[in-house]
Amino acid sequence: EAGSVNLEDFVKENVGKLAADACVWEFGYVDNRETPMQFLGLRGICYVELSIETASRDVHSGTGGSIFPNPAWKLVWALNTIKKPDETICIPGFYDNIRPPSQRDVDLMAALPETSEEYKQEYGVKEFLKGLTDGVDLRIAEVFEPTCTICGLTSGYQGAGSKTVLPARASAKIDFRLVPDQTPEQVLEGLRKHLDDHGFSDIQITNLGGEPPARTDPDHPFVNLVVECARDVYGKPMQIVPLSGGSGPNHAFIHYLKLPVVTSGIGYPGTLTHSPNENIRLDLYAKGAKHIVRIINEFSKA
Amino acid sequence: EAGSVNLEDFVKENVGKLAADACVWEFGYVDNRETPMQFLGLRGICYVELSIETASRDVHSGTGGSIFPNPAWKLVWALNTIKKPDETICIPGFYDNIRPPSQRDVDLMAALPETSEEYKQEYGVKEFLKGLTDGVDLRIAEVFEPTCTICGLTSGYQGAGSKTVLPARASAKIDFRLVPDQTPEQVLEGLRKHLDDHGFSDIQITNLGGEPPARTDPDHPFVNLVVECARDVYGKPMQIVPLSGGSGPNHAFIHYLKLPVVTSGIGYPGTLTHSPNENIRLDLYAKGAKHIVRIINEFSKA
Repeated sequence: EAGSVNLEDFVKENVGKLAADACVWEFGYVDNRETPMQFLGLRGICYVELSIETASRDVHSGTGGSIFPNPAWKLVWALNTIKKPDETICIPGFYDNIRPPSQRDVDLMAALPETSEEYKQEYGVKEFLKGLTDGVDLRIAEVFEPTCTICGLTSGYQGAGSKTVLPARASAKIDFRLVPDQTPEQVLEGLRKHLDDHGFSDIQITNLGGEPPARTDPDHPFVNLVVECARDVYGKPMQIVPLSGGSGPNHAFIHYLKLPVVTSGIGYPGTLTHSPNENIRLDLYAKGAKHIVRIINEFSKA
Repeated sequence: EAGSVNLEDFVKENVGKLAADACVWEFGYVDNRETPMQFLGLRGICYVELSIETASRDVHSGTGGSIFPNPAWKLVWALNTIKKPDETICIPGFYDNIRPPSQRDVDLMAALPETSEEYKQEYGVKEFLKGLTDGVDLRIAEVFEPTCTICGLTSGYQGAGSKTVLPARASAKIDFRLVPDQTPEQVLEGLRKHLDDHGFSDIQITNLGGEPPARTDPDHPFVNLVVECARDVYGKPMQIVPLSGGSGPNHAFIHYLKLPVVTSGIGYPGTLTHSPNENIRLDLYAKGAKHIVRIINEFSKA
């Protein structure tokens, strides 16, 4: 999953050659009820590294501590202006283009199984943000609210014990998960303006990749076909998830090729996605193949 | 220089056995004018690690980004309350016990050579804090103002490119350099109260060591003896630096044994202190030995 920076342009320039009626995406799993899930959208993403260098090498803090600029402090102060402790993201225009979930989205989210206890047990999380505890509100917040996540902080001495050093450099890796209809370009532009306006022009922004969010209409006939084709294979239809928290390059297919993009993945809760010993279950491999055959069969009749 | 946590207590409990008239410290160097420098004080220090853990393991940011607490953000928000962009340290009582430099201190600092260009060249620093540019003001700020330096920041993903992860843990290494008459105990206590008062009780403070500042009176007769003994050896007397920016355990000797503590070190600007290839010059080794002999000789007559 290195990401392809050329995919979007390639699709745009080859709309004719890539013309199709529908698209099946490699994504998805059966959940712990053995219910196959149908993910109809992916959040967008904008991943940046903020960095600042104030000296050519680290300095003994007894020398520089009182008189040299400290890049770690500058980074902290800059980050502090980007998101407030109440989780508000302060980049100008950040919330301008957000389309809230429709009533249909809310109904679909309400039908999904409860996950709060699972999260607490699996990740050791004691509480959720903004006073949320469980239910549809938590699930809607999980995917329909955009994020600004610090994925990493790096500066100076990181070993055991103490080292009295004033670092030369500091950096933060940050991802923004975007909801319809936000775009990574809007975030990048807003972030640069925000940092400049707050006196942090010396903080560099490195764009490490992004893509807009995109969704398929849950009431598209092809969605219904794929969902229903699961009934024979899994003993039940797929359950629709209107938007996933993760990201992926579905935007070009949905927006330039105008395709309904549906999923028919064969993972399960123990798949260990992107981890050592990533695996699939043989029974799900067979079920997935059968599901695809049924989709092709039914689609040929439609 | 691992630091001895037992030294202070040992000295306190053995004041009788350790009784003396004066103390010569292994510290100091000739500067780039070949002038031997006499350092008459060391700043104190309080070194802490602030850390916070909000989950048992890192979480995919597509899952947790909108609803799980982020320890890196909490650390940023907490740090931001500790020091303001104008360099003011906001811990209650932090500045209460500071004794400003005396007129004698200011005169001694004014007599020291200019270092601003040297700093800019050696460390690639473009500007100094608080609009300072050079001269005695810069030199006084360097050692007579206490600091709060972020020595290190650690959280989440730190490799190349992007990894979309919500970290489980975040930490910061921080040193406070203390000036007379601050104490590490006062800083630790104030910092805990400050974090609690700002809603950061979940941030742990690990005390990684500290010692109070201590100084010897520049007009003590023993100082004059040691400074003058250099004349025969180095061709000039030592130049007095009333306070060094660095730290060391001179407090127990000055405050419990009531000794004047003077320095007679044999470093030089190319010594590479604490670095690979740390070295001394043979001529300075011989000069240092001669200096000590003269100190003992003159002291025996006093």
